[in-house]
Amino acid sequence: MKTLQDYIDKLNSLNFKEMYNNDFFLTWEKTDDELEAVFTIADALRFMRENNISTKVFESGLGISLFRDNSTRTRFSFASACNLLGLEVQDLDEGKSQVAHGETVRETANMISFMADVIGIRDDMYIGKGNAYMHEVSDAVKQGNADGILEQRPTLVNLQCDIDHPTQAMADALHLIHEFGGVENLKGKKVAMTWAYSPSYGKPLSVPQGIIGLMTRFGMDVVLAHPEGYDVMPEVEEVAKANAEKSGGSFTKVNSMAEAFKDADIVYPKSWAPFAAMEKRTNLYGEGDTEGIKALEKELLAQNAEHKDWCCTEELMKTTKDGKALYLHCLPADINDVSCKDGEVEASVFDRYRTPLYKEASYKPYIIAAMIFLSKFENPQEILKKLEERAGKRIFE
Amino acid sequence: MKTLQDYIDKLNSLNFKEMYNNDFFLTWEKTDDELEAVFTIADALRFMRENNISTKVFESGLGISLFRDNSTRTRFSFASACNLLGLEVQDLDEGKSQVAHGETVRETANMISFMADVIGIRDDMYIGKGNAYMHEVSDAVKQGNADGILEQRPTLVNLQCDIDHPTQAMADALHLIHEFGGVENLKGKKVAMTWAYSPSYGKPLSVPQGIIGLMTRFGMDVVLAHPEGYDVMPEVEEVAKANAEKSGGSFTKVNSMAEAFKDADIVYPKSWAPFAAMEKRTNLYGEGDTEGIKALEKELLAQNAEHKDWCCTEELMKTTKDGKALYLHCLPADINDVSCKDGEVEASVFDRYRTPLYKEASYKPYIIAAMIFLSKFENPQEILKKLEERAGKRIFE
Amino acid sequence: MKTLQDYIDKLNSLNFKEMYNNDFFLTWEKTDDELEAVFTIADALRFMRENNISTKVFESGLGISLFRDNSTRTRFSFASACNLLGLEVQDLDEGKSQVAHGETVRETANMISFMADVIGIRDDMYIGKGNAYMHEVSDAVKQGNADGILEQRPTLVNLQCDIDHPTQAMADALHLIHEFGGVENLKGKKVAMTWAYSPSYGKPLSVPQGIIGLMTRFGMDVVLAHPEGYDVMPEVEEVAKANAEKSGGSFTKVNSMAEAFKDADIVYPKSWAPFAAMEKRTNLYGEGDTEGIKALEKELLAQNAEHKDWCCTEELMKTTKDGKALYLHCLPADINDVSCKDGEVEASVFDRYRTPLYKEASYKPYIIAAMIFLSKFENPQEILKKLEERAGKRIFE
Repeated sequence: MKTLQDYIDKLNSLNFKEMYNNDFFLTWEKTDDELEAVFTIADALRFMRENNISTKVFESGLGISLFRDNSTRTRFSFASACNLLGLEVQDLDEGKSQVAHGETVRETANMISFMADVIGIRDDMYIGKGNAYMHEVSDAVKQGNADGILEQRPTLVNLQCDIDHPTQAMADALHLIHEFGGVENLKGKKVAMTWAYSPSYGKPLSVPQGIIGLMTRFGMDVVLAHPEGYDVMPEVEEVAKANAEKSGGSFTKVNSMAEAFKDADIVYPKSWAPFAAMEKRTNLYGEGDTEGIKALEKELLAQNAEHKDWCCTEELMKTTKDGKALYLHCLPADINDVSCKDGEVEASVFDRYRTPLYKEASYKPYIIAAMIFLSKFENPQEILKKLEERAGKRIFE
Repeated sequence: MKTLQDYIDKLNSLNFKEMYNNDFFLTWEKTDDELEAVFTIADALRFMRENNISTKVFESGLGISLFRDNSTRTRFSFASACNLLGLEVQDLDEGKSQVAHGETVRETANMISFMADVIGIRDDMYIGKGNAYMHEVSDAVKQGNADGILEQRPTLVNLQCDIDHPTQAMADALHLIHEFGGVENLKGKKVAMTWAYSPSYGKPLSVPQGIIGLMTRFGMDVVLAHPEGYDVMPEVEEVAKANAEKSGGSFTKVNSMAEAFKDADIVYPKSWAPFAAMEKRTNLYGEGDTEGIKALEKELLAQNAEHKDWCCTEELMKTTKDGKALYLHCLPADINDVSCKDGEVEASVFDRYRTPLYKEASYKPYIIAAMIFLSKFENPQEILKKLEERAGKRIFE
Repeated sequence: MKTLQDYIDKLNSLNFKEMYNNDFFLTWEKTDDELEAVFTIADALRFMRENNISTKVFESGLGISLFRDNSTRTRFSFASACNLLGLEVQDLDEGKSQVAHGETVRETANMISFMADVIGIRDDMYIGKGNAYMHEVSDAVKQGNADGILEQRPTLVNLQCDIDHPTQAMADALHLIHEFGGVENLKGKKVAMTWAYSPSYGKPLSVPQGIIGLMTRFGMDVVLAHPEGYDVMPEVEEVAKANAEKSGGSFTKVNSMAEAFKDADIVYPKSWAPFAAMEKRTNLYGEGDTEGIKALEKELLAQNAEHKDWCCTEELMKTTKDGKALYLHCLPADINDVSCKDGEVEASVFDRYRTPLYKEASYKPYIIAAMIFLSKFENPQEILKKLEERAGKRIFE
């Protein structure tokens, strides 16, 4: 696309009215048009930034970030997205705050939201908890707005939960769209979402789940590969199956990395913890059984160690489509002899794909900004047009 | 009020010139007109935000927040107020900073204030210290400005000290003004500021002190109730007495929650620590006597436990005016069988008042913004008018 | 100077084109014209702020701060500089972030920089590491920009490394320029950069190194004084010698504070750790030898204790030029009987110079802002002119 009008025309062909004043929890809760709208706005915002057109649509307002797990990328992506639109980020650090002091979610959600236009939450540690918590927060501020307590309804953006990692999966997808020259070209492509060995334990399931839940939307042949016992949530597999049927693609499961890589156009080798184990950990955590958690961790690390052969090697890469499938990763990756002895990928493979990997990550701030934009404006096309007419410069000139 | 001009007209009838380029420490250091000006600007700013008129008056500038106690509400209220006016919040985390490294207050105050337009401090832990510390900071930056070191004099806003919690009390009062349809309607209303049981220890005195020090300004009948030995600072009681005399209201003390609740229009049941004990703790802290502090805490918790009957029950609420007094709390409250077994209030009472309680809290960001606004502009009426004429939108449209 | 045009005219006489889209690591990597340009822009920005002219040149964009050592001053100076130009500060707290999780510098640098216009780093703890780390970060984002990952090249500003503390030294120099009425008046002035006793251990070498590396540029007679064994990095001494030769000044070393103070126009008494010891500490740290570090610390404190007589006393001050040399310090100072029993300076001396000391510090935010400004705009003169014409107000009026 060459002009802003091209993006606007694209948007005019889509129906996304339900996104207005709404949240973004899971990609499979959104229609194809709605996802397309997110991609289009993300590209439009990037286009404007590249052309030094200010996309500041908020003169004031807060973007609240609530992270229950360490994060560099997602934290900075959210901060970047907010900043791009004019929102100031305010972290709700549960250490500093009184959330720790037995305060109800409903109350805190309202107390921090008097001037909040968006709330971004990362809560991926415990099965059955993260997404539920986000809904609790969203319901609370929706009610607060209805009751006249909050003058606006803060949009909730899921920055990674126990079920999905929508901002990651959407950024990955936008990367593919650009690499393959359009979403239509993804049809029939083979994607290998495969488990890979990592010396660490308990990596979230939300990435593989997000990928199979989203990539099956585009008529791709999605293969989920993992050693026995490393299953993801069954309900997400159901989503993937249904998506594939609808989109004319396919969703298959194998227990061999080699089989998954064979003739793949795209590979996504990544460690995650077995769903069952994560569920068990959640229960142990609930019971405050730290000994049990330690034992489980030990057990899982031993189980992991049996699968060190699950690594993205040059040899395996050779077996992919023309020997040059596109390698994806949400980063940081466990790289052999770099971040660890044995890991998810060989250094030479990773190095060869560094630039595309970084590009992949670069879409996330725009994806998040697009989700906010679509929730805040009933007619985003008109807003984009007016921003172009306003012709404010991001950097003064 | 319906138009911005109504707020401007109101301001034109008030004398608040002393607030220009000045600080806000204690409500009783301000005249009735000055408090009225804060309420009026707070309402005006909220009116403008509700009408999507940008109140951004700073293109750049910092709002420094210095919290010596955990805080969600006040932290976010201050951040929201700063953001509403265009100031970027910068936390002075004494952990991160060199304040911990034996640096003088005067020096730090200047070093952080080169671009600071406001400094908000919460320091309520030690009797005789918090308010004094705020004055030290204020004197330092006032001098720094006079010496040509600082190009502006940062306004100090007391976000809670050992004596008063002005932003809380003012927000509570503005809530009452709106609930009762005008400050004039507060005359003759009975307010019960009463102690209530909490399983925790050492809650600040600044809330009850702030309430009796402010509500006695409006001709209300203020009753302070607490078990024997739970007195607040005597000098604040003197302030309340003098206020009541001047305003034609009353200030009385009782040792019975029931007596306080009887026919009350407004009830504010809240735990606090005995003044004498807090003074003792401050001294023990000064001597670094941690054993002594532990012993004191144990003693106080035992003393507290004798007063579990001091709880805001449905039964007590029935005895209030028409059985429906307005229930206030600064939040978070200790709710029976919710945040603790026995607490300050029964869950059914708290639930019934949740919406008004959240509204009560929602005034705080506007109160803080109004305090800043009145300190920064010699003629706020003119500024409000010009902002309306500028017609900048908070959210682009 | 009286009008903005005066600053613009000054800039027109200087050649600083290499600063555009470039970093600031060490003052001696910059030409005299380039340093002059920094001073001139810093003064121009201060002039505009004093005249309530907004210097906001960024509508959006992030300023990333990465501190590997505690800091109040530098942290707030960087935040103030970013805010003055319109950038929002985002701290990369390595505790919170995944840098701690074995992530490569190159990757993190790109992941945090998608919307970053500047990165400020303080990393002064380990000899041979800090400056090298900054270059790694700079190379990474420069490459990221070239590869189309980052839409802009973030400017790196050295907020203190193991070799130099350019923002401090430049702020100190600008203070001297104003105190002595022009850089030309610094010629022939005697500066005593001398070691002073502190009860603490391991203070960075970057301040004395920065001072001898910069002040020798202006034709001053720079004397470095320290007890035997407290040498600074030899390569920096070489720089100072070369500078002095070129500028017609001098650089001499003595082992007597008295000799250094004699007839000095400017004195800078400050504690630092011996270079050799810091190098040793770095190696011990690399080997993870905490016992060795403790032993070294003990040894150094003992060594320090032998030099308590190295203190800036009234008596010594009397021996300076007319008994009133200008006293400089980067702050915080170790003040006798204030911050410690025996320290770097007598309380009465420090008190007499408090106002100039605070002024000295007040230049730092403007110096940092000027470094950013010169890197972001190819023709800063034109930008200054346009800002004056835009006539935006920092505070609404």
